[in-house]
Amino acid sequence: MSWRSIGIFDSGVGGLTVLREIIKAMPQEDTIYFGDTARVPYGTKSPETVIRYAHEITSFLVRRDIKLLVVACNTVSAVALNGLKRHFPIPVVGVIEPGAKRAVEVSRSGRIGVIGTAGTIKSSAYSRAIKRLNAQAEVLTRACPLFVPLAEEGWIDNQVARLTAQSYLQDLKEAGVDTLVLGCTHYPLLKPLICETMGPDVTLVDSAEETARSVAEILSRKKLLRPPSEKGNHHYFVSDVPAAFIRVGNRFLGGRLGDVYQVNLDDEREEG
Amino acid sequence: MSWRSIGIFDSGVGGLTVLREIIKAMPQEDTIYFGDTARVPYGTKSPETVIRYAHEITSFLVRRDIKLLVVACNTVSAVALNGLKRHFPIPVVGVIEPGAKRAVEVSRSGRIGVIGTAGTIKSSAYSRAIKRLNAQAEVLTRACPLFVPLAEEGWIDNQVARLTAQSYLQDLKEAGVDTLVLGCTHYPLLKPLICETMGPDVTLVDSAEETARSVAEILSRKKLLRPPSEKGNHHYFVSDVPAAFIRVGNRFLGGRLGDVYQVNLDDEREEG
Repeated sequence: MSWRSIGIFDSGVGGLTVLREIIKAMPQEDTIYFGDTARVPYGTKSPETVIRYAHEITSFLVRRDIKLLVVACNTVSAVALNGLKRHFPIPVVGVIEPGAKRAVEVSRSGRIGVIGTAGTIKSSAYSRAIKRLNAQAEVLTRACPLFVPLAEEGWIDNQVARLTAQSYLQDLKEAGVDTLVLGCTHYPLLKPLICETMGPDVTLVDSAEETARSVAEILSRKKLLRPPSEKGNHHYFVSDVPAAFIRVGNRFLGGRLGDVYQVNLDDEREEG
Repeated sequence: MSWRSIGIFDSGVGGLTVLREIIKAMPQEDTIYFGDTARVPYGTKSPETVIRYAHEITSFLVRRDIKLLVVACNTVSAVALNGLKRHFPIPVVGVIEPGAKRAVEVSRSGRIGVIGTAGTIKSSAYSRAIKRLNAQAEVLTRACPLFVPLAEEGWIDNQVARLTAQSYLQDLKEAGVDTLVLGCTHYPLLKPLICETMGPDVTLVDSAEETARSVAEILSRKKLLRPPSEKGNHHYFVSDVPAAFIRVGNRFLGGRLGDVYQVNLDDEREEG
């Protein structure tokens, strides 16, 4: 019997933190990752543009017969998820809903902090998702634009990273949030530092972990999980030359990437 | 008599530091600025892609009858300048040559430092340009990836910026460079901090200033300068929604931007 893969995409390398959690939770699954490195970042682009890109990439992955799609990108999850669910005949999982759900479950006080890129925070996607689950929740948000370049630079525990975290997180800490959602796929790399900055009374919610948990639940419910005795294969596609993706990606995935192939979505479209 | 405009383009807002110097040097000139905000950044894209984008944007500006083109983007200057010069019948000025020329003029020791984005440094474009002018020059380079997000965040004189500058510039300082080229259009915003970090014995070369000087020389030589009694108008076009461009751009331009229009280069191409 042949098993279908889990498809995962992001605008760049960030989604590899989600892939890492998926591999950790379900090492038997085959995966196909697509990083749109030619068009990264999405956060500064209009919703129309992001929706168009998301449909192109999902078509590419669906042609490779994936059984489930993970949108490992906060920007796409915020603007394109419902459209993708309507348009493609497979389960589609974003990164916002799982993180929001977990935050509501673990918060005792209902005061929940959310950090992310400027685009994600401005979209209010996490605030809305949390409020849908608990209308009484109080959501405090903060954009942390320097966290992405710090993570990509590998500056995750030096003094620059520490001062940046203190500056960004001070207000949330003083406001007394008891739960903080890491609303950007790059942030798991900074988790030890964010944890240290917020102190032991604040529970961190890692959207990457929660998304992997959602994927496992859905595949289990639909009886689409491979037997745990198997060992998964992992394929990587990017839209621009792979060198930078490989260099930064190895740090993000916490291990060695396999082969990374470059594809041109325009050519694919004509062929498809 | 009607006067033609100076055309300027960059992948985003950074080129506004070049525009600022052009307006300072030639306040009588009309300008048209194009920021490719839908596709920023270029530094991570392949040369083929960058060349294609540069030709699209130059065509857009040439249709608006510009008299000279300023490529206010280091990535494009490094890979596409010769192609643009061959293909379009107007003078084309990049940001690398003027900075390299000035560095060779002012350096006494011939030990010249160059800082820029990872892409610019990896391209060795400044090193080659400097060596062409002085084969004996010793060029020391350093990529400073966090400087762009620091400038866009407006963190240009706090402790995070200071420690980042110290970390990036320490080796160049210890190596005893007497001249440092700011090889990225975002870096003029950090000039006071970089100056403080390098100390009074190091001359900073601001590529934006030198590029404006080159433009003035060429227009003067070709008798294309407007009379100094005139007052220039400034138009701005971007390829994605203008909100973020306007917010960050006002800081970069050191003043109020006028109206900013969004254009879709695909539509333009059909129409053109």
